[in-house]
Amino acid sequence: MELNGTGAIEAKLKQLGIVLPEAAKPVANYVPWVKTGKLVFVAGQIPLKDGKPQQLGALGAGVSVEQGAAAARLCGINLLAQLKAACDGDLDRVARVVKLVGFVNCAADFTDIPKVVNGASDLMVEVFGEAGKHARSAVGAPSLPLGVSVEVEAVVEIK
Amino acid sequence: MELNGTGAIEAKLKQLGIVLPEAAKPVANYVPWVKTGKLVFVAGQIPLKDGKPQQLGALGAGVSVEQGAAAARLCGINLLAQLKAACDGDLDRVARVVKLVGFVNCAADFTDIPKVVNGASDLMVEVFGEAGKHARSAVGAPSLPLGVSVEVEAVVEIK
Amino acid sequence: MELNGTGAIEAKLKQLGIVLPEAAKPVANYVPWVKTGKLVFVAGQIPLKDGKPQQLGALGAGVSVEQGAAAARLCGINLLAQLKAACDGDLDRVARVVKLVGFVNCAADFTDIPKVVNGASDLMVEVFGEAGKHARSAVGAPSLPLGVSVEVEAVVEIK
Repeated sequence: MELNGTGAIEAKLKQLGIVLPEAAKPVANYVPWVKTGKLVFVAGQIPLKDGKPQQLGALGAGVSVEQGAAAARLCGINLLAQLKAACDGDLDRVARVVKLVGFVNCAADFTDIPKVVNGASDLMVEVFGEAGKHARSAVGAPSLPLGVSVEVEAVVEIK
Repeated sequence: MELNGTGAIEAKLKQLGIVLPEAAKPVANYVPWVKTGKLVFVAGQIPLKDGKPQQLGALGAGVSVEQGAAAARLCGINLLAQLKAACDGDLDRVARVVKLVGFVNCAADFTDIPKVVNGASDLMVEVFGEAGKHARSAVGAPSLPLGVSVEVEAVVEIK
Repeated sequence: MELNGTGAIEAKLKQLGIVLPEAAKPVANYVPWVKTGKLVFVAGQIPLKDGKPQQLGALGAGVSVEQGAAAARLCGINLLAQLKAACDGDLDRVARVVKLVGFVNCAADFTDIPKVVNGASDLMVEVFGEAGKHARSAVGAPSLPLGVSVEVEAVVEIK
């Protein structure tokens, strides 16, 4: 196994055509992740790309399930970028994605919340295989930061 | 103490008239629980019975506090079923219910959210006694998966 | 270092003019915090003072960002009171504030959720310095217990 991002997970990311962005800096008085023991708690990530929100609005009020799932996948990519920083650049150190919580900006009559959050869940399994299978909660929210459609946070065990 | 579900907690469940269902399988790319160190993170459970949602709709918009609390109790029973699987069938291995988060599908003017989540909290204390007393957050949501009224997730310490 | 709340963090609280209340007792069948290993999970705190909610209502529907941030700060003060109890009275035992989740009671068109939760985040950094910098999620909710404007929960590593 090679270190510093040249290992198996980086190869998998390349195969999937995923280029991780620079880990985004929070805009407030908090940090994007904290490591305690073997657990990394990653702050809620939103569908930002190059610092700009890519998907605004509510599911069931103009945003489709496909758009929502794509936004959740982008949240997942931003989670991976933070996680890579937490692992000193070596994603092969991820032992297990323990838990995701996905918050979906939605109207009261929208109930396909799980299908939206699948955008992030599927990504974790594509990238980490069995180690990417996580416990999960998926819930609705009337609004999210900046008005984005999805926010996803994570707890991850690393080696 | 006998193993494999013949111990003290199983006796308590019998005394309470609670029959745990088969641990429900998630419908998406995630798993119902992950164990990391001594902690089990259990995925958000909804009021399913025999695979069917038992309570749909929003508190403060047609669903009563009593119905909501019953739904939360059913979420709790499903949490116990997952936890039993995580303990290899022996709920006596539960050292402490650490944390519950209860999400309540509700209208904006509904504020009795804690009374609803009590349905799950009371169950934990009935079943585990002192070890069932947990930290908790109870929050509203405009919608939940499948349109159910309540969703409850858990962090549990096991032996 | 002196024990029992006469150390560095108590001095910092005094300097900031913050008097911690008695740790509030939950009104339901749960406890305000649970310690597992080195982690303390603190139950969701609301802006109570002397047992009374200080800020009701929704952001974007009558409650200003400034009022919301003040409510979040009060949630943070109540978190500190619980944390002090979890540390047997000695806040110098706080090793790291790991994670906050802030839920903001808000209208669907309110998007300044992070600015509201900053009221709690800033407090943690004022009190604990680097050790107060935490991962965070900030999300909207259509309603919260008692109708309060903000609820904040925490995971904290202690020594």
